[in-house]
Amino acid sequence: MISVVLLGGGNVAHHLTQAFLACKDVDLKQLYARNASSIANFQNEISITDDLNLLADADVYIIAISDDAISSISSQLPENKLVTHTSGSVAMNSLNNTGRKGIFYPLQSFSKTKPVNFSEIPICIEAEQDEDLKILEQLAQLISPKVYQISSDQRSKLHVAAVFVNNFTNHMYKIGNDICKQYDVPFEVLLPLIQETAAKIQHVAPNEAQTGPAKRKDQETIQRHLNLLNTKQKEIYQLITKSIQNG
Amino acid sequence: MISVVLLGGGNVAHHLTQAFLACKDVDLKQLYARNASSIANFQNEISITDDLNLLADADVYIIAISDDAISSISSQLPENKLVTHTSGSVAMNSLNNTGRKGIFYPLQSFSKTKPVNFSEIPICIEAEQDEDLKILEQLAQLISPKVYQISSDQRSKLHVAAVFVNNFTNHMYKIGNDICKQYDVPFEVLLPLIQETAAKIQHVAPNEAQTGPAKRKDQETIQRHLNLLNTKQKEIYQLITKSIQNG
Repeated sequence: MISVVLLGGGNVAHHLTQAFLACKDVDLKQLYARNASSIANFQNEISITDDLNLLADADVYIIAISDDAISSISSQLPENKLVTHTSGSVAMNSLNNTGRKGIFYPLQSFSKTKPVNFSEIPICIEAEQDEDLKILEQLAQLISPKVYQISSDQRSKLHVAAVFVNNFTNHMYKIGNDICKQYDVPFEVLLPLIQETAAKIQHVAPNEAQTGPAKRKDQETIQRHLNLLNTKQKEIYQLITKSIQNG
Repeated sequence: MISVVLLGGGNVAHHLTQAFLACKDVDLKQLYARNASSIANFQNEISITDDLNLLADADVYIIAISDDAISSISSQLPENKLVTHTSGSVAMNSLNNTGRKGIFYPLQSFSKTKPVNFSEIPICIEAEQDEDLKILEQLAQLISPKVYQISSDQRSKLHVAAVFVNNFTNHMYKIGNDICKQYDVPFEVLLPLIQETAAKIQHVAPNEAQTGPAKRKDQETIQRHLNLLNTKQKEIYQLITKSIQNG
């Protein structure tokens, strides 16, 4: 049985809380949030607090708060305890506690209202000490079969890659939506294509999955497309087309 | 009962053939391909030919061949028959038959080896005559509940939007994959995020779904990311970040 104190009132903390509560081998001892109202919905199931001086004793402290507050809150946590954070882009050594440090990073885009199946979510772990790594591995495996040991250095690269496949992909959807709105075509017509594009990549490498006028070097279609776009859309179309053609 | 002759030996023709064969209210009379070996796998189920002079009589002729060959083949089809094509980017008036013209465009990215559920695929139809539009609507509804009447003009715009949400999105996956390979991080860690990004957009508008450092105007993270990228990746990162920030 691994005991945990979880700090944070946002999406990641919310879904981790639910996953830990559902797991009989995790003893979720306490939730902390600066603003207790953000975790009040859990108060019937678990002890909550908004006072760092009242933190319970636990094997692992997981900080799931905004990146820029991790350093400062970590310095106020109990000494000689394993303290981790859940951020994709903050290095392990940004933790300012005096004791042991680690990372417990579930790599997914969370929305508060949408239920999450943790068995589908990769958890990236890291620790300074081998023994701590084992604890985090054990904890992670209790909620997901997909556990990866990833260094802070690798994690920072993974985070950039995630920006491309998530944030920038969503912007491609946004431009597609803009074009549809502009010409009065229902965007919903494109939704099955969007799903299929993501489904394909689960089995096929991205460079093999690539299709379209850029890949075919179909200059006639490319030119016709450019004529339909506004200046900003055109700039992006041209740059990505060039990038596809350069392989 | 609507009778159909289907022309083409590629992915779209392959999947349409299967969908029509599975539908008892469609009489698929014949398949044509210039290279009969590409449709030989259907020869036990249906009449096939590689000779345009031997085309069967049917209510609808569907041309599912490469864009640049549509005009030429259409000019050789029977007179006074409803002739359609399946392309997203070729205008209806590119059809050179002497009779009635229409469009039967299933909007999806097809792979020959992957089975297709047509009930999930939008079919965009168009015709010169109202009566022909009714025939195409009836035919489309027999294989999919998602039938849209889309003009050639709208379809050309939809096709550009599809390039963004499909081809360009796939390129975002490719860059993510490149970064992972470069830094020895397993790309598979990102696959659930890719699926979630596509799943989210099925219910949430793209501009509401947007997250990440660009959206947050988190300059520190953006700068750290730029330092990890090569020149080409950096150029794309900067342009899309700017585009996200300009809304």
